[in-house]
Amino acid sequence: MDLQAIRWQDDALWLLDQTALPARTRWVVCRTGGEVAEAIRGMRVRGAPAIGIAAAYGVALAAREVPDTLPPGLFLEHLRSAVVPLVRARPTGANLRWAVERVLRAVAEKDVVADMRRAALEEALRIHREDEEANRRIGRLGADLLPPGCFVLTHCNTGALATGGWGTALGVIRTAWAQGKVQGVYVTETRPLLQGARLTAWELQHEGIPVTLVVDGAAGLLLRQGKVGAVIVGADRIAGNGDVANKVGTYPLAVLAHRHGVPFYVAAPTSTLDPDTPSGEAIPVEERPPQEVTCLGWGWGEEGHLLPTAPPGVSAWNPVFDITPAPLITAIITEAGVAHPPFSQSLPRLSGRNRP
Amino acid sequence: MDLQAIRWQDDALWLLDQTALPARTRWVVCRTGGEVAEAIRGMRVRGAPAIGIAAAYGVALAAREVPDTLPPGLFLEHLRSAVVPLVRARPTGANLRWAVERVLRAVAEKDVVADMRRAALEEALRIHREDEEANRRIGRLGADLLPPGCFVLTHCNTGALATGGWGTALGVIRTAWAQGKVQGVYVTETRPLLQGARLTAWELQHEGIPVTLVVDGAAGLLLRQGKVGAVIVGADRIAGNGDVANKVGTYPLAVLAHRHGVPFYVAAPTSTLDPDTPSGEAIPVEERPPQEVTCLGWGWGEEGHLLPTAPPGVSAWNPVFDITPAPLITAIITEAGVAHPPFSQSLPRLSGRNRP
Repeated sequence: MDLQAIRWQDDALWLLDQTALPARTRWVVCRTGGEVAEAIRGMRVRGAPAIGIAAAYGVALAAREVPDTLPPGLFLEHLRSAVVPLVRARPTGANLRWAVERVLRAVAEKDVVADMRRAALEEALRIHREDEEANRRIGRLGADLLPPGCFVLTHCNTGALATGGWGTALGVIRTAWAQGKVQGVYVTETRPLLQGARLTAWELQHEGIPVTLVVDGAAGLLLRQGKVGAVIVGADRIAGNGDVANKVGTYPLAVLAHRHGVPFYVAAPTSTLDPDTPSGEAIPVEERPPQEVTCLGWGWGEEGHLLPTAPPGVSAWNPVFDITPAPLITAIITEAGVAHPPFSQSLPRLSGRNRP
Repeated sequence: MDLQAIRWQDDALWLLDQTALPARTRWVVCRTGGEVAEAIRGMRVRGAPAIGIAAAYGVALAAREVPDTLPPGLFLEHLRSAVVPLVRARPTGANLRWAVERVLRAVAEKDVVADMRRAALEEALRIHREDEEANRRIGRLGADLLPPGCFVLTHCNTGALATGGWGTALGVIRTAWAQGKVQGVYVTETRPLLQGARLTAWELQHEGIPVTLVVDGAAGLLLRQGKVGAVIVGADRIAGNGDVANKVGTYPLAVLAHRHGVPFYVAAPTSTLDPDTPSGEAIPVEERPPQEVTCLGWGWGEEGHLLPTAPPGVSAWNPVFDITPAPLITAIITEAGVAHPPFSQSLPRLSGRNRP
């Protein structure tokens, strides 16, 4: 499968709606920056790298909305204001702001409005293409780290759906599978929005890679029974010291892997690195509506197909990321190389094209 | 609320159907031992102590099915065979076998069949009554251990629904709440069957105890943020060395609590102690249908209201318990006293009426 969940087509951004998968294949077409921000907020596109790519196209779309009668300086100023909702759509991932700023920088280099608009789209296309290339390289570098014949545990979705293509953690697994190194994959379902069950299981099934789904709480027994040779996850933001923000439930997996002597790898493009954030303490953790917890199907699935769990009126706390401290991480795999501890020294040495 | 989920009424066993809660209050009426075994298998009654009580009544019902024309010795032999499906209904919990054997012992003490039948029912009623009394005592002993003004984290359901009344871990929380010691309760939803969301949130809401639901994976962030003063859970079987089998997801909570210096308490009646099982390695971990993972609403909720998560054909591993090793447990609270490490020495010293 050469799955492309993000397409630039007919002068619009086409997003494979990830709230409808796996039951339905539905595309969301965005023709304005505001529509892209809305698609990101509603998690129709998700995964830090994919969000970054979508946001880059969002800037290109926003650039078409700013009047071309403005002088270039004012045009850029208007564009900066227009993309604020895009930047604010999701707070935790680093790639969103990185991508928006990169496109704005490309725009700022031009001095004619028509060129500025063209530069925005070209930079978005470049970010998209580079992300897929980065993933292929992450896949090769990561596969080298995996022990042969192992079973791997992954969390959430970090595949073609979460990126410009191929995937980060799932890209490593795909490459290692192609090399005959991986026997099978355990996937945590990843509550509340079940990206593991809905998206990762679906991607792996399409690839023909043996996949076994478990509830998030079963990872403890799985690791204790020695069934897993490596845990590999993606990242939404990597702080300067190597602390990693990723989908809620990642931190418990890292603690369990550490306890059982199982290597814990993080795979992400350098666009996820945020050296301006010194440690995990400074990463804002997004909290989403409690209904994602109390109502199964809230935010995904068919409209109106909700399955309440808790009785009405019960409150829920729904942080959708957590922070894994650097000492629990065996290595961070980027397209610019593999960083080993101490990360505050190894991360700055990476020099990817995506490097902020 | 003086919730009684198990009732002996009109010569039959009435079970509040826990697969229908909280949406519907529906009772299952069992008039044969086989119907009780089926209700246990289908988790219409669940929680190790409640399963034990239901099974005790199941033996009393089975005793009515064995022909009273048989001589007492043969009657007992037939009864032993008749209750095999009861004993095999769920493999992990200790209370089921304990209760069945206790009723059979009471039957064996009689030498007239009519007395044997009567003794079976009387012993079942006694086990039921004693369990609620044990819980009240567990509640008092456990509440003494909690720091004042704390928030508590619990997992699965260990309340009135899971026991003869009051609850084990939830009984401690109820007692501590009544004493003004607990500020509020965080409850993990407890996938796959969501007993935390469906049952514990419902019980706490009825009690007026502030409850906040979280997905299982969010417990890491919760503990890391220092929001929890104590973790308290129930148990399905406690091995001789203090290893505890409990609902899947318990072990990760214990590991996380240990890491963050938060006390981790296990509350259970002495009928859950199994000195014949030397350690957790010897406890059989029940695996249930994969559909409980891949299909939300499977095994609970309204008939036909299923919400598939994974695409069709994806396999799942569904162990419904895990083993928490004794060194992660701060104390085990029973009605016969509080056991502290080393448990292989402290557990045998307990001398409850329920002691096996």
